Amino acid sequence: MPKISTKGQHMPESPIRKLVPYSEIAKKKGHKVYHLNIGQPDIKTPEVALNAVKNTNITVLEYSHSAGFESYRNKLSQYYQTHGLPINTADIIITTGGSEALLFAMGSTMDQGDEIIIPEPFYANYNGFSTASGVTVVPVISTIDEGFALPPIAAFEKLITPKTKAILICNPGNPTGYLYSKEEILQLAEIVKKHDLFLIADEVYREFIYDGEEHFSIMNVPGLEENAIMIDSVSKRYSMCGARIGCIVSKNKEVMATAMKFAQARLSPPTLAQIASEAALDTPQSYFDDVITEYKDRRDTLIAGLQKIEGVKVATPKGAFYCIAKLPVKNADNFAQWLLESYDLNGETIMVAPAAGFYSTPDVGLDEVRIAYVLKKEDLIRSVEILEDALKKYNNK
Amino acid sequence: MPKISTKGQHMPESPIRKLVPYSEIAKKKGHKVYHLNIGQPDIKTPEVALNAVKNTNITVLEYSHSAGFESYRNKLSQYYQTHGLPINTADIIITTGGSEALLFAMGSTMDQGDEIIIPEPFYANYNGFSTASGVTVVPVISTIDEGFALPPIAAFEKLITPKTKAILICNPGNPTGYLYSKEEILQLAEIVKKHDLFLIADEVYREFIYDGEEHFSIMNVPGLEENAIMIDSVSKRYSMCGARIGCIVSKNKEVMATAMKFAQARLSPPTLAQIASEAALDTPQSYFDDVITEYKDRRDTLIAGLQKIEGVKVATPKGAFYCIAKLPVKNADNFAQWLLESYDLNGETIMVAPAAGFYSTPDVGLDEVRIAYVLKKEDLIRSVEILEDALKKYNNK
Ligand SMILES: Cc1ncc(COP(=O)(O)O)c(C=O)c1O
Ligand SMILES: Cc1ncc(COP(=O)(O)O)c(C=O)c1O
Repeated sequence: MPKISTKGQHMPESPIRKLVPYSEIAKKKGHKVYHLNIGQPDIKTPEVALNAVKNTNITVLEYSHSAGFESYRNKLSQYYQTHGLPINTADIIITTGGSEALLFAMGSTMDQGDEIIIPEPFYANYNGFSTASGVTVVPVISTIDEGFALPPIAAFEKLITPKTKAILICNPGNPTGYLYSKEEILQLAEIVKKHDLFLIADEVYREFIYDGEEHFSIMNVPGLEENAIMIDSVSKRYSMCGARIGCIVSKNKEVMATAMKFAQARLSPPTLAQIASEAALDTPQSYFDDVITEYKDRRDTLIAGLQKIEGVKVATPKGAFYCIAKLPVKNADNFAQWLLESYDLNGETIMVAPAAGFYSTPDVGLDEVRIAYVLKKEDLIRSVEILEDALKKYNNK
Repeated sequence: MPKISTKGQHMPESPIRKLVPYSEIAKKKGHKVYHLNIGQPDIKTPEVALNAVKNTNITVLEYSHSAGFESYRNKLSQYYQTHGLPINTADIIITTGGSEALLFAMGSTMDQGDEIIIPEPFYANYNGFSTASGVTVVPVISTIDEGFALPPIAAFEKLITPKTKAILICNPGNPTGYLYSKEEILQLAEIVKKHDLFLIADEVYREFIYDGEEHFSIMNVPGLEENAIMIDSVSKRYSMCGARIGCIVSKNKEVMATAMKFAQARLSPPTLAQIASEAALDTPQSYFDDVITEYKDRRDTLIAGLQKIEGVKVATPKGAFYCIAKLPVKNADNFAQWLLESYDLNGETIMVAPAAGFYSTPDVGLDEVRIAYVLKKEDLIRSVEILEDALKKYNNK
C-alpha cells in the first residue's frame, strides 16, 4: 500500500475536531448545545450582496480573470482608499478566501525549511498553511497576563535566524481579540526592515474594533511598501464566510507577480461569490454600525459574565469576536469534552474551543479556551451561566 | 528588499501569458480574434443549476462542512454509481475546482523532492501544482506520431526511482484529446501496484467522449482501491468553470483523512457554487446529448479542416475538446505571436496556445499548438481558413 506524505502526517487537525464526536453525543441525548467554539457569525449577510447573485443574468458561469474581476478590484481599491488605505487595483489579487491569500503569501515568499515568526496564541490554521507550505512556525509568546501585548523587540530578535523570512500577525487577533497599537506596528516594521523580512498582516477583522479605538494597518507604514503583505477577506466583514472570497494585497511588484503565478495555476476565484462580494461593497454604513453595536454589546455581556465567575481570567478583546479565557481547570480539553459528554444544565450545554490548538509551543494554554461571541446576547448570558455551573460541578467531581 | 521564494521563481507562467500583450495589440487594431487558445466553453450552463442559486433563500452565507455539503456528496455518489463508478459518499471530498483537488492529492501523497511521472504533453498547470508542492515532474513522452498512445511499461519503469510516488494521467487528455483504453489503464494499474505508487487520474473530461468509445475509469480497476485517486470537476461537465467546484475521490482511507486535514485548513469550498453544483446533478440527459453532438460536430469540422492544410499534422482527439496540431513552422511561439501582432485576414485572426508549455522536456513540441474547439462551427471553419492563409503568408515572408 503506498504511503501518504510526511507533510500530510504532520498536517494538524482542527483544534475542535476531537470534540465533534462528543458534540454528536450531546445532540443524541437531546441536549441543546451553545456553539461558542466557531467563528461563523449569525449576522445576516447584506441583502445587496445576496440580491446581486439572485438577479444575475449570466447564462455561462465562466472563469474570471485569475486576479479576479477587474471591476471588483477597482471598487475594492476605492473602498480601501475611502478607509485611508493607499491601495491601488494593481496591488490586489482576489483569492478564494483569506485562506488562499495566506497560502499564496507563504508560497511566494518562503521555501521548504524557511521560518516564519508568529506571536502566539494564533489562528490555528496558520499551522496548517505553514505545514502545507513546508514552512516552520517559530512562535513568540504573548500571554494573557500581559493582555496579549506584542512581546518586546528583543524577544523577536532572539528568534531571527538566516532562515527567517517573515513575521505574521493577525490584527485584530483571532483568538485573542488583541488590537495592535500604532507603536507596536511601527516596532514590527522596524524589525522587518532591519532584517529584510516580510511582514504579513492578516487584517480580516479590521472592521471589528470597539471602544472607539482605531485600527492601524501595515499598509499605512511609510517606507514599508516592499515588506508589507496584507491578507483580507469578505468572510467576517459581510458575514459571508461561505462566499470564499478574500485577497492578497502588496505594493511589492515581485511578490504580486509571483502570487499571480500561483493564482493562474488555479485559474480563478469563484465567480458567483465575486458578484456577491463586489455588490457587498455597496452595503450601507448603517449595516456596519448595527453590527458593531451588536458585537460590542455581546462582548460586554460575555466579558462581564466571565469576569464574575470565580477563578476565570479573561483579557478584554478590543477587536474581532473572540476571547481567550483561562479557566480553573487543569486541562481544558478534558473539560470541553466533559461538557458535551457528561454534563448538562436542564438539557443545555456549551461547546468551547480548547486553546492549546492556538499555540504551537507544546503544553502552553492547556487551561485556556477560546470563546467566540457570535451568538445572540441572551444565548451568551445563558452560556455564561452554564459555564459557571459546569465549572463548579466539574471541580467538585 | 526581502526576496521572493525560490519556489515562486520557479512557478511557471501560463503558456499563453506571453501572448496576452499581443492579443491586446490585435484588439487595438480592431481585429477580431478567434480564441482557440482557451478551455472556456461557450456552452450554456444548465438552467437548473443557475436557477438553484437564484431561488436560494439563505440569509446568512455560511461556511459549509469542509468536505462539502453532505447532501451534495450523497447525490454525487449516486451520480457516479449510476454511471458505473463504485463511489460512496465517504470517498468524496468537495474541493474548490479540480485544481484544488490536484493540490490536495499532491500534498497528501508527496513531499519536497518526490517525483511524479506524467505522460507529456500534459495540462500545463500540473507544472504549477507540482512546483507549488515541491514535487519534481518526470515526463514520459507520448508523441503525435503515435497518436499520443501510452508509452510501453518499460518506458515508465526506466523512470521509476525511490523518490517516485505517483503517476498522474489525464483521461481523456488535455491537450491531446487522447482516451486511454481499458488495456492501457490496466497496464498502468499493474505498474503502480508493482512499485507501490499512487495512480492519480484527472477525469474532468470523462463525459466528453466521441465515436461511441467508452471511458474506463481508474475507479473501476479491481484491487486498485488503495492506489487510485480520482480528480473530478463540474467546470467542463456543466460548463460552469466559474463555480470552482470539483472533488478528490479515493477509497484509500489514509489519503482521504489526510486530504481532509488540508480541506479543514482552508475551511470550506464555496457555498453558492455548491448549491449550483448539487442542482446541476438534475441536468437532463438531453443536455449532455446535445452538448456531445455539438462537440463531435465541432471536432469533426476542425480536424477535417486541419487535415486539409498542407504540412499540418493532427491526431484525432477521442475525447475532451482540444487537439494538438503540428504546424509547418519552426517555432509555434513566434508564429502565434505573429498571428496577433502582424497578421490579419480581412480584419480577423486567431489565437492559439503554443504547445511547448504543455511539455516539461525542454525543446519538445516547439512546432505544435493546442487548439480548443470551444467555438461555434462557423467560427471554427473560419479559423481554419485563417490558419491556412496565415501559414502560407508566414512561410513566404
Ligand atoms: C484570523 C483569520 N484569518 C483568516 C481566516 C480565513 O478566513 P476566510 O478563508 O474565510 O477568508 C479566518 C477565519 O476564521 C481567521 O479567523
Ligand atoms: C485537465 C484539466 N484538469 C483540471 C482542470 C482544472 O479545472 P477546474 O479547477 O476548473 O476544475 C482543467 C481545466 O482546464 C483541466 O483541463
